[in-house]
Amino acid sequence: MTPEIKNIAVFTSGGDAPGMNAAVRAVVRASIYYKKEIFGIYRGYEGMIENDLVKLNARSVSNIIQRGGTILKSARSKEFRTEEGRAQAYQHLKARHIDALVAIGGDGTFTGLHKFYEEYKMPVICIPGTIDNDLAGTDYTIGYDTATNTAVDAIDKIRDTALSHNRLFFIEVMGRDSGQIAINSGIAGGAVAIIIPEEETTIDQLIEKLDETARNNKKSSLVVVAEGGKSGNALEIAQQVKERYSYYDTKVTILGHLQRGGAPTYFDRVLASRMGVAAIEGLLQGETDVMVGIQNGKIVYNDFELTMSKEKEIEAEALRIAKILAI
Amino acid sequence: MTPEIKNIAVFTSGGDAPGMNAAVRAVVRASIYYKKEIFGIYRGYEGMIENDLVKLNARSVSNIIQRGGTILKSARSKEFRTEEGRAQAYQHLKARHIDALVAIGGDGTFTGLHKFYEEYKMPVICIPGTIDNDLAGTDYTIGYDTATNTAVDAIDKIRDTALSHNRLFFIEVMGRDSGQIAINSGIAGGAVAIIIPEEETTIDQLIEKLDETARNNKKSSLVVVAEGGKSGNALEIAQQVKERYSYYDTKVTILGHLQRGGAPTYFDRVLASRMGVAAIEGLLQGETDVMVGIQNGKIVYNDFELTMSKEKEIEAEALRIAKILAI
Amino acid sequence: MTPEIKNIAVFTSGGDAPGMNAAVRAVVRASIYYKKEIFGIYRGYEGMIENDLVKLNARSVSNIIQRGGTILKSARSKEFRTEEGRAQAYQHLKARHIDALVAIGGDGTFTGLHKFYEEYKMPVICIPGTIDNDLAGTDYTIGYDTATNTAVDAIDKIRDTALSHNRLFFIEVMGRDSGQIAINSGIAGGAVAIIIPEEETTIDQLIEKLDETARNNKKSSLVVVAEGGKSGNALEIAQQVKERYSYYDTKVTILGHLQRGGAPTYFDRVLASRMGVAAIEGLLQGETDVMVGIQNGKIVYNDFELTMSKEKEIEAEALRIAKILAI
Amino acid sequence: MTPEIKNIAVFTSGGDAPGMNAAVRAVVRASIYYKKEIFGIYRGYEGMIENDLVKLNARSVSNIIQRGGTILKSARSKEFRTEEGRAQAYQHLKARHIDALVAIGGDGTFTGLHKFYEEYKMPVICIPGTIDNDLAGTDYTIGYDTATNTAVDAIDKIRDTALSHNRLFFIEVMGRDSGQIAINSGIAGGAVAIIIPEEETTIDQLIEKLDETARNNKKSSLVVVAEGGKSGNALEIAQQVKERYSYYDTKVTILGHLQRGGAPTYFDRVLASRMGVAAIEGLLQGETDVMVGIQNGKIVYNDFELTMSKEKEIEAEALRIAKILAI
Repeated sequence: MTPEIKNIAVFTSGGDAPGMNAAVRAVVRASIYYKKEIFGIYRGYEGMIENDLVKLNARSVSNIIQRGGTILKSARSKEFRTEEGRAQAYQHLKARHIDALVAIGGDGTFTGLHKFYEEYKMPVICIPGTIDNDLAGTDYTIGYDTATNTAVDAIDKIRDTALSHNRLFFIEVMGRDSGQIAINSGIAGGAVAIIIPEEETTIDQLIEKLDETARNNKKSSLVVVAEGGKSGNALEIAQQVKERYSYYDTKVTILGHLQRGGAPTYFDRVLASRMGVAAIEGLLQGETDVMVGIQNGKIVYNDFELTMSKEKEIEAEALRIAKILAI
Repeated sequence: MTPEIKNIAVFTSGGDAPGMNAAVRAVVRASIYYKKEIFGIYRGYEGMIENDLVKLNARSVSNIIQRGGTILKSARSKEFRTEEGRAQAYQHLKARHIDALVAIGGDGTFTGLHKFYEEYKMPVICIPGTIDNDLAGTDYTIGYDTATNTAVDAIDKIRDTALSHNRLFFIEVMGRDSGQIAINSGIAGGAVAIIIPEEETTIDQLIEKLDETARNNKKSSLVVVAEGGKSGNALEIAQQVKERYSYYDTKVTILGHLQRGGAPTYFDRVLASRMGVAAIEGLLQGETDVMVGIQNGKIVYNDFELTMSKEKEIEAEALRIAKILAI
Repeated sequence: MTPEIKNIAVFTSGGDAPGMNAAVRAVVRASIYYKKEIFGIYRGYEGMIENDLVKLNARSVSNIIQRGGTILKSARSKEFRTEEGRAQAYQHLKARHIDALVAIGGDGTFTGLHKFYEEYKMPVICIPGTIDNDLAGTDYTIGYDTATNTAVDAIDKIRDTALSHNRLFFIEVMGRDSGQIAINSGIAGGAVAIIIPEEETTIDQLIEKLDETARNNKKSSLVVVAEGGKSGNALEIAQQVKERYSYYDTKVTILGHLQRGGAPTYFDRVLASRMGVAAIEGLLQGETDVMVGIQNGKIVYNDFELTMSKEKEIEAEALRIAKILAI
Repeated sequence: MTPEIKNIAVFTSGGDAPGMNAAVRAVVRASIYYKKEIFGIYRGYEGMIENDLVKLNARSVSNIIQRGGTILKSARSKEFRTEEGRAQAYQHLKARHIDALVAIGGDGTFTGLHKFYEEYKMPVICIPGTIDNDLAGTDYTIGYDTATNTAVDAIDKIRDTALSHNRLFFIEVMGRDSGQIAINSGIAGGAVAIIIPEEETTIDQLIEKLDETARNNKKSSLVVVAEGGKSGNALEIAQQVKERYSYYDTKVTILGHLQRGGAPTYFDRVLASRMGVAAIEGLLQGETDVMVGIQNGKIVYNDFELTMSKEKEIEAEALRIAKILAI
């Protein structure tokens, strides 16, 4: 039987995502609701190793639900990948009487925490916070909805100028190993083609599509490219198309880090709020070494190993829709 | 066996919702993709009775996926509720060789179409477009995601002034019989209390909550009220609180019709795109007198009667979360 | 000759306005740049009387330039209107060795500060922060640009639904004694008529205009009403129009306090930054009992009395443009 | 004496800018207000040469005031730079009885029109539409306010992630020969340094500034770079800083074409509305071969030659403010 949990610490780690603050707020307030002490660790595993933590109360997290980024800051730590680093972290936590950990982050974060749990058996739980939505075991990760809307808002602006000049734009969105943002921002942005890491698109296929729609009187076009596509990045693809297809004046925009920031959408705030409460309730019910997820609208707890061993399926149905609509 | 469908007409009806244009676009392009002729009827049933329809092509719906409102316009028709009105509509449709109808709207729209189907047996299918998200048979209706984000964006702005002045704001959001927008914009807006039509909240309970958080050092507060609440509208509730609880300076804002407009979110555009394609594919596979829905991420076709006979359940779990976080 | 200024205090007062934080930041950093100590007073004159002030440094105002509201909070103080209140405030300031005051607010704020200056001869300077843009002596006040854009953004959303339903909307914007927000959001929103406090519009004139444009094939219309119009508020005007003119289905939206919040525009941030620096530079050059203003793009210092004695002229030229464009 | 003007044509040319549609609308409606016929030419000089023009009425420009881009489309034309091209254009215009031209664009557009006027003496007038705000003879060009706000909105999002990770970001904004967007988005974005084409900044100076603020406890920083800076583009500058200064993790974002699109701000819509009316009123009062401008809030008409011969002064005062605030 697990000994009673009295003091919990929460931290954010890896790439920041909009909604992380909403998750921190939920973890803090749920802890207080259940009469536990709650601490915040700064800069993820780095702060853990450097003993950089502070006690939080309900007001510490007032007025942050709407803010992008993370008030606890984030970092990637090389030291925590070593046994010594983890030992150091454990000693600091023990000295402060921390009984359990809540991590908000992506798969790198989970890997570290899983190892830590195996070594020290301190109860740990993870909340998926990453704009990429690339984790098995949850339908949505925190930040994905906001990032996709940010991408779509940028695509809408670029469409204005594409339309005015009868141009072809290649727009690169985030998602190194995952085409999720590309697929959904592509459909929502009315893209003529969407290029994702999970599926190969040849330059021939792309030019054929562009030509088919041009013959169908389309005067301007957008192609959305996920940053990690096999056919190259947006600049490379655009260059190849340009050399062989001159119907359009061709331009490239790389959206970059602005996709990470901004006030989270209602969806990400509610998701983060639910997951934050679920993390604390899970911990108190004995869940450990698991990730909180949402599947078919319901909270679930999945083993880290499952989460990390499986790839998320690509949305074949969404790609089919995208093709029907690009005529 | 249904005779082959060759000519389809699409219309929007009832209160407009962001994403209706994306649904029109998807219906039009999917029809063309499947080699059908597609017509647009203006102003819903009114235009049907007045024979106000026009042939559409793939370019007719270019550059509308991002626009609020509906290019086909909408209206509420008294005449279509009469047998004569529906007979007139049928004659016009027949004269134009229309074989099937796609309606985008809410429950009023469906009721009319169901009657029309029972009388004339013309294949019909509905797409749920309403910001209220109050239809059984689908997890989400088109427009709900956008409207909730619009409400949250307004709440964020009001929070700035509430915080600066240590004030209490009552914010009325849309949802005459449904607390969906209120619940989710309330959680996302960090509201101290959420008042919905489906559940009674007494002034005593409300004041107790306000006082509890004030004692917990909260300096300003937001209460989100759905327009159809049993305890009265936002003005009435605010007045009653004001008379009995003077800790805060109290203000009221009624968000009103701005919740209906604006560029749709990615979610509403993708949902509308999927449902628009599904409506055409359903029709062509023999579905009729049904509403397209999305349940657990998958497209479903539900009988109108089921859709209209059942009330959507309130999100008890969401309300529970809201209470834990408002401390 | 003025004795050297060493310690300056800054506060915000009256209705909050977006950009106040940018002004606070500029005042703080300019003070430090010129080697002065800088203090923040909370809740305006109330905090002054209650001795609620704190020393600030360059990092105290990091990451606030983009935030609506005011980190120093604001309030309206009855006590400061009394001699005793001001005496109390002066004693606290003296005890903390404060040599000069910078106020950010509107005309109520200035009136109080002018009296304080006359009584105690402590150097004081004002920065105009109010969304109403109703102060003589400056072309723009901080917050006006943001509030007008917020109003226009809301009008755009309402237009979507007005267009879809062929409706007439009355939209009430802020500006109790000033039609500035109404005029400019009305022109930018494509309003058919704009009703402001400074000019009478009869219901006859309004109906005539509506009818003229309807005959000219206009299918939906927006009327923007400043909250303090002589012809009544938006609800009253709409009611009168409705009774006599039935061409349109008529609706009303009152934008309310959401116009006060939100991230400030670049214009308000730059204006606030310039004015904040100018306030400190003015004080150090011996300016006192003046308001910082901007006229024809240049910083000016105008006597309070001039600022408060003159009314800002209405923009006759803008109204003329509005009429030409509403056809 | 000029013969009476009866038929006017309007077109947009060069890079598109938000607010061009508002200017088109104003030109069209003012023409009709003054009982003139008004035509729209598509794709600027290209459409003129290809005789691609259409008669417009008050309703042709309904519901476009809020849209980015230009409904008349834009293009750059090589042929119009030749005598033959201009002769062809003139013949088409004459055949359609066009008496006067209104151009909306930047300096390239003006150069062409000036030559055309010298050759054919047809009355012509220009409206400055370009996001760069780089034209002498007007304080503001249409599109600049919107583009700067778009840049600031992106910078705000990037700040969220910069803050979370203690990073240094280089953000490249538009303005090939003009630092206007960079200066004002830099001040509004709280940038530690702003690099513009008009002024040299050495890598040494930049590193010194970064180091000074870092010693002053600044944990993350933003540098805004105009695309045409003498010290290189954002990628090159970032690379040089990275090699010599390792305190921060350094990233680059190039905002690109999204700065051209989006719904125009109230300021750009009102400016465009005023300039559109002024263009028609100017033409009808005999102004020709001039650009409409706004100086100190008043409409002016300046000779093209003056406009094109003078460079706009850089905002030295703004740069001074930027330096004071970056501490």
